[in-house]
Amino acid sequence: MPQFVKRIDHIALVVEDIDKALDFWQEALGMKLSHMEEVPSEHSIVAFLPAKESEVELVSPTAPDSGVARYLKKRGPGMHHICFEVYDIEATMEHLKNQGIRLINEKPEIGTGGKKIAFIHPESTHGVLVELYELSGQELQIRVARAREFADRVVSQGQTMAAVAMEYLRNLRNGDRVKPS
Amino acid sequence: MPQFVKRIDHIALVVEDIDKALDFWQEALGMKLSHMEEVPSEHSIVAFLPAKESEVELVSPTAPDSGVARYLKKRGPGMHHICFEVYDIEATMEHLKNQGIRLINEKPEIGTGGKKIAFIHPESTHGVLVELYELSGQELQIRVARAREFADRVVSQGQTMAAVAMEYLRNLRNGDRVKPS
Repeated sequence: MPQFVKRIDHIALVVEDIDKALDFWQEALGMKLSHMEEVPSEHSIVAFLPAKESEVELVSPTAPDSGVARYLKKRGPGMHHICFEVYDIEATMEHLKNQGIRLINEKPEIGTGGKKIAFIHPESTHGVLVELYELSGQELQIRVARAREFADRVVSQGQTMAAVAMEYLRNLRNGDRVKPS
Repeated sequence: MPQFVKRIDHIALVVEDIDKALDFWQEALGMKLSHMEEVPSEHSIVAFLPAKESEVELVSPTAPDSGVARYLKKRGPGMHHICFEVYDIEATMEHLKNQGIRLINEKPEIGTGGKKIAFIHPESTHGVLVELYELSGQELQIRVARAREFADRVVSQGQTMAAVAMEYLRNLRNGDRVKPS
């Protein structure tokens, strides 16, 4: 049996209000916000809180008719999916198909931060939405471009989010969170 | 702000049939089962699949009126809670109380494998059940005793589960999964 899974990359939690949720994770549990990012294609905003080699990802809708907003209405806030980093996403997906596992994506897509990602249908996992991801070569460039865009947009919305975005850019320049672990 | 969280210890998934669920995680996703354990106080059986420094924990009911069985009936199979290893569980709980966070346990309890554990109420976390754990000094002794007991009981139930339990005991003797990381 080949080994596909490298580590748990993140656990995604859907929340109504990302700032209120951040209060819990930052103030109560003492975790640090590494960066926030808008995902226009998903009409959502995401925030990442690292815990050693994995992260908690908060996801909140930015439009009332988005998939995340519909999920919130139907299921309420809570755990949404687990994401595993895999060594080779194409090989993993090929093996899963051969095992009769139902995939949501037929081919890897480009997700947040330029990762190659694909989802496994909960029907084949006994109820949990599983995301697979492999670091792509374009990840650094895409992350920098998205963070710059986000920083520009939030400057008018308040100092806190702009400060987060600028801090993130500084970290990127210092080479943090860029090298594959 | 003191740092409380060390790492994500495990993600717990509630499943109807632990053997069928293991087929997905082992055969399809290529993860390895490290050990299984019965938790008589919870009327459940648990299986652990490590992914680097964290684990996926499958939980399945062994009695129709258990808390896990009721959860399954109400919500269906899927993600149940996230467990974080913390540096000091008493200090973390004290800080959470001071922040007005609702805890399910007033004091740490002894959980699977002899860990000191406590749960935070989803009301205070924006919808997710959060478990905190700190390694206790008795963890090794309790794990060995429970694994022996489990191995004795499953010998009559079939070779596979007995083999898993014996493998686990061998690993314990070799010092795996015992030292704090």
